[in-house]
Amino acid sequence: MAKPVVIVLSIIALNVFYTAFAFGPIPLQDFCVADPTSSTRVNGLPCKDPATVQADDFFFSGLHLPGNTTNPFGAALTPVTVTQVPGLNTLGLSIARLDFAASGFIPPHTHPRATEILVVLEGSLEVGFITTNPGYKNFNKVLEKGDVFVVPLGLVHYQRSVGTGNTVAIAALNGQNPGIIAVPSAVFGAEPAINSDYLAKAFLLDKKIVEELQAKF
Amino acid sequence: MAKPVVIVLSIIALNVFYTAFAFGPIPLQDFCVADPTSSTRVNGLPCKDPATVQADDFFFSGLHLPGNTTNPFGAALTPVTVTQVPGLNTLGLSIARLDFAASGFIPPHTHPRATEILVVLEGSLEVGFITTNPGYKNFNKVLEKGDVFVVPLGLVHYQRSVGTGNTVAIAALNGQNPGIIAVPSAVFGAEPAINSDYLAKAFLLDKKIVEELQAKF
Amino acid sequence: MAKPVVIVLSIIALNVFYTAFAFGPIPLQDFCVADPTSSTRVNGLPCKDPATVQADDFFFSGLHLPGNTTNPFGAALTPVTVTQVPGLNTLGLSIARLDFAASGFIPPHTHPRATEILVVLEGSLEVGFITTNPGYKNFNKVLEKGDVFVVPLGLVHYQRSVGTGNTVAIAALNGQNPGIIAVPSAVFGAEPAINSDYLAKAFLLDKKIVEELQAKF
Amino acid sequence: MAKPVVIVLSIIALNVFYTAFAFGPIPLQDFCVADPTSSTRVNGLPCKDPATVQADDFFFSGLHLPGNTTNPFGAALTPVTVTQVPGLNTLGLSIARLDFAASGFIPPHTHPRATEILVVLEGSLEVGFITTNPGYKNFNKVLEKGDVFVVPLGLVHYQRSVGTGNTVAIAALNGQNPGIIAVPSAVFGAEPAINSDYLAKAFLLDKKIVEELQAKF
Amino acid sequence: MAKPVVIVLSIIALNVFYTAFAFGPIPLQDFCVADPTSSTRVNGLPCKDPATVQADDFFFSGLHLPGNTTNPFGAALTPVTVTQVPGLNTLGLSIARLDFAASGFIPPHTHPRATEILVVLEGSLEVGFITTNPGYKNFNKVLEKGDVFVVPLGLVHYQRSVGTGNTVAIAALNGQNPGIIAVPSAVFGAEPAINSDYLAKAFLLDKKIVEELQAKF
Amino acid sequence: MAKPVVIVLSIIALNVFYTAFAFGPIPLQDFCVADPTSSTRVNGLPCKDPATVQADDFFFSGLHLPGNTTNPFGAALTPVTVTQVPGLNTLGLSIARLDFAASGFIPPHTHPRATEILVVLEGSLEVGFITTNPGYKNFNKVLEKGDVFVVPLGLVHYQRSVGTGNTVAIAALNGQNPGIIAVPSAVFGAEPAINSDYLAKAFLLDKKIVEELQAKF
Repeated sequence: MAKPVVIVLSIIALNVFYTAFAFGPIPLQDFCVADPTSSTRVNGLPCKDPATVQADDFFFSGLHLPGNTTNPFGAALTPVTVTQVPGLNTLGLSIARLDFAASGFIPPHTHPRATEILVVLEGSLEVGFITTNPGYKNFNKVLEKGDVFVVPLGLVHYQRSVGTGNTVAIAALNGQNPGIIAVPSAVFGAEPAINSDYLAKAFLLDKKIVEELQAKF
Repeated sequence: MAKPVVIVLSIIALNVFYTAFAFGPIPLQDFCVADPTSSTRVNGLPCKDPATVQADDFFFSGLHLPGNTTNPFGAALTPVTVTQVPGLNTLGLSIARLDFAASGFIPPHTHPRATEILVVLEGSLEVGFITTNPGYKNFNKVLEKGDVFVVPLGLVHYQRSVGTGNTVAIAALNGQNPGIIAVPSAVFGAEPAINSDYLAKAFLLDKKIVEELQAKF
Repeated sequence: MAKPVVIVLSIIALNVFYTAFAFGPIPLQDFCVADPTSSTRVNGLPCKDPATVQADDFFFSGLHLPGNTTNPFGAALTPVTVTQVPGLNTLGLSIARLDFAASGFIPPHTHPRATEILVVLEGSLEVGFITTNPGYKNFNKVLEKGDVFVVPLGLVHYQRSVGTGNTVAIAALNGQNPGIIAVPSAVFGAEPAINSDYLAKAFLLDKKIVEELQAKF
Repeated sequence: MAKPVVIVLSIIALNVFYTAFAFGPIPLQDFCVADPTSSTRVNGLPCKDPATVQADDFFFSGLHLPGNTTNPFGAALTPVTVTQVPGLNTLGLSIARLDFAASGFIPPHTHPRATEILVVLEGSLEVGFITTNPGYKNFNKVLEKGDVFVVPLGLVHYQRSVGTGNTVAIAALNGQNPGIIAVPSAVFGAEPAINSDYLAKAFLLDKKIVEELQAKF
Repeated sequence: MAKPVVIVLSIIALNVFYTAFAFGPIPLQDFCVADPTSSTRVNGLPCKDPATVQADDFFFSGLHLPGNTTNPFGAALTPVTVTQVPGLNTLGLSIARLDFAASGFIPPHTHPRATEILVVLEGSLEVGFITTNPGYKNFNKVLEKGDVFVVPLGLVHYQRSVGTGNTVAIAALNGQNPGIIAVPSAVFGAEPAINSDYLAKAFLLDKKIVEELQAKF
Repeated sequence: MAKPVVIVLSIIALNVFYTAFAFGPIPLQDFCVADPTSSTRVNGLPCKDPATVQADDFFFSGLHLPGNTTNPFGAALTPVTVTQVPGLNTLGLSIARLDFAASGFIPPHTHPRATEILVVLEGSLEVGFITTNPGYKNFNKVLEKGDVFVVPLGLVHYQRSVGTGNTVAIAALNGQNPGIIAVPSAVFGAEPAINSDYLAKAFLLDKKIVEELQAKF
């Protein structure tokens, strides 16, 4: 069972790799559409010639299409960030579609560079975030169709389908590249691996279990 | 015909009055949930006692419900900003639902404190924004179901239904209170009225027409 | 009568094209003087070699010279932004001179990326801005010599000479490239044109009048 | 063995509760020293009367004293944030002392509102952070006396003593209240508890183990 | 000769005390007019009830009036900051008038929270700023009527009249309360006095001279 | 005596030239490690290919080594800014070691782009900063081992050893390149020299003494 999980995790990780989310700068011109052909690298992305900018640079198509949830998570993320829409560069905003099969979920994660607001379009979704001050308190709700919930900047949060059918949500994040850190993958799937003795102590787990997790992630 | 328009404009204006949108600060704590009972006024809003904060402070219900488009605009805006969700305070984000009957529209407007990203859930919507550099160029698209479009910070933009049925969209803005300035109302509906000779010259309109507009708005 | 207006509007638009205004970032070095020869494009502008920077990079001459107000507006704008003074890059500030003949005016406009403060040096100038929250309220003053007025970020505002002679003002904006959106030009002069049925409904104007305006702007 | 861990975790959590860290705003005055007696709550903290401000408001004593590492972590954190030094309010900076006994560690954690730089004063400390783009890559170093390492904003990172004696480090964070989210506590120690079926699937652990962890944390 | 200097320095210092300048936050509403009656203190200033805000809150009169230059500096500063114009609160901008008699000057100073742009209205003014990277390089110009010069954020700069008559300039700063640190007063006029042995060594001056300076400032 | 001073000042100035400090932007990606080989210049620094980034890009070694205080200041500064650690780019933070022999000192200076927090590791150090509002008030403390002090953004401050032995401190600044302006060098050592008549009047010094200082610095 571990192998398929690893593969799918890698797919999602790759997906996120090329599509990560955001919060942002103050634009200094009407727009600064990201130039995919530039070899220069800056905070954010360099811009293309304004004279060549088209409406299509601010456009994305396909957010009505369900993501493929046939994977161990029973979930799919369709991001619309600066990677998909170059016109988002410098503008500090992105959007995404979340799909969940029954019992689908997204692992506990943080967005290091964005607050998130999400609205459920169909199904039932439990969403919760954990604060540290007040300490390790879980603010959570079961969201039904039309419900909205907010996750403050950088906090650990989770989403899991609690309905019997498919669940769909739209999430907006105030960053062009908000980032997503899936906690289990970051902790147990890091390359090179984090010392297993350390993880065993930090998570109060047997070292053997930690090493199994590290093999799986 | 002018009277009903005036009334509806007032309703929408009032609606916006209490619900205006945003872009934002950097949070200095996990959250700073707006305290509606505070008499202190600051940039943004003062916060309530963290010990009394509930998950409901980050929650809103009802975005699945169509807005009432039985008005001269044939359109409705259902905002979810810091006014509706006090937990959005300091977090720089908001969301809204847009409903359009056939031929419904939102007048040309700007958000002085936010970039906007919107996704069409059903129907057909033309969206365009006008840049000033390059000068007075109209970047526009007709969006179908699942299409996404971005409107950069502060630019004049417009939305009009171009389908035969209802159109629904979700818009996200990177501000807790982004503001909405409907250009016709701001120009012709300002109180006290802007000098009509001036408006006639600025808009290349007969003064009489300007004064009629000022009576209507 | 339409033709000269169009021409002059184009001149001013072009002027603004190459001279747009601003609000801004946080500088990360003593200065980052814009390099006009760089082919790289970023948020703001790339910098020239600090070793080649001169005092002249922070200098502009000629703000004592009246602008040419022999145009349908009876007004002229002399901007001093990052386009004129490359040393302003990353520093979030610009300045401009405004000249008005008797009855001269600047159409209703916004600066999408700056607050404005202006001081009248001679003549009489009515200045007003319209807020949306409180809704469509016109905060306006007639300014005489030595009077100062502030226009908050992104709000629609107007300036019109109300004296019998020339009026001169200095305006400062907290952006290196604040932008200027002349509302009539953005709405009726956009290229490609905004749908005239839509504009007719949004402005409560006859479609024929809208199309005449679109021909003029 | 579980019990003492729980207690110590609580102590540390409480400690963090009242002392959490940060990144920040732009000060609008020379200083805005936090007023502990104010009942008003804002983003950051309200300020005391400048006339009553003393040098002591910018002062803290005791960072030479080793923290008590006689706990299951073998580690101690002595924070100097806006909670300890009210003069840090609005200034976007804080500092802390870290103590480790041999084999001491701090669990994987993030600072949601700060970048961290740390310098080792004595001993040997492995520090690593995990990026998501590139995906789940572990950037880590073993730091000896005089070594410095940087952890970018919001990323998961870990610290563990790898020497045979005590290890001491000074960490600076660019926030007055950077926050600290210990991943194991946030995930397994949240109150109310996160659904154990969900955690089991997300972490690829037996539900029974998850429930044991939830009992421990 | 020392006595009058001390008095005038005090007057200017007091003037600055109550009128200090700025750079700033991002406004979260159309305006947040400073409320002088509030006893709450925050970063910037608390706001008054929007319903009571008037156009006068954004207005200042008198910048055409020469300041009184009959003082040892032969110079006068008339600031228009948030202290004079409460509507500037949260908007990150201020303006000032500078008057110089022949040979008048402003001592070397910095604005800790603003970039400055200034335009000479009449007379001749030498302005220079010193960078540290490149190191201790003096970027300076003699400005005549209509000339504009920029001083980057936080750098030491100086202004001295070099004409035979009066000199007048308008300066804009991108802060509501930019602050002004006159270097000689800060160094030699601090209360309590900075150790004179230290100042003697730092400035390569005789301790006796330092103590004379400290008596004068 | 002047010659050696000049030389050492130059050494320190050069040191600062290549090592200047900071406050900062908001990162738009996990990291943006400065690329020393890039010929492009931007606000901050362009980034290297993320695929080539190593842990060493976030690492610095040697802060345990005393700086060489055999100079007229009896002090040494060992900076760790974006110049030494390219991984600090866009992250808004830096650190430094300060060494003082008995009676060693750092001249009055400002950091134009950072707040500073420092902790004394050994010895005795007087630190003070001067505010302008309240006006020219000296907030100062003698710091012993383990004491911490904060210097707000942009304010003039000083550090002088008051112990009989060596003094060591660690300072953190919330900027990748905070800048350091040594007041005596900026005022009396600027190139080209500031007019000596002006400096004499501004500092209430004999012109002859000013010219001697200018020869020394």
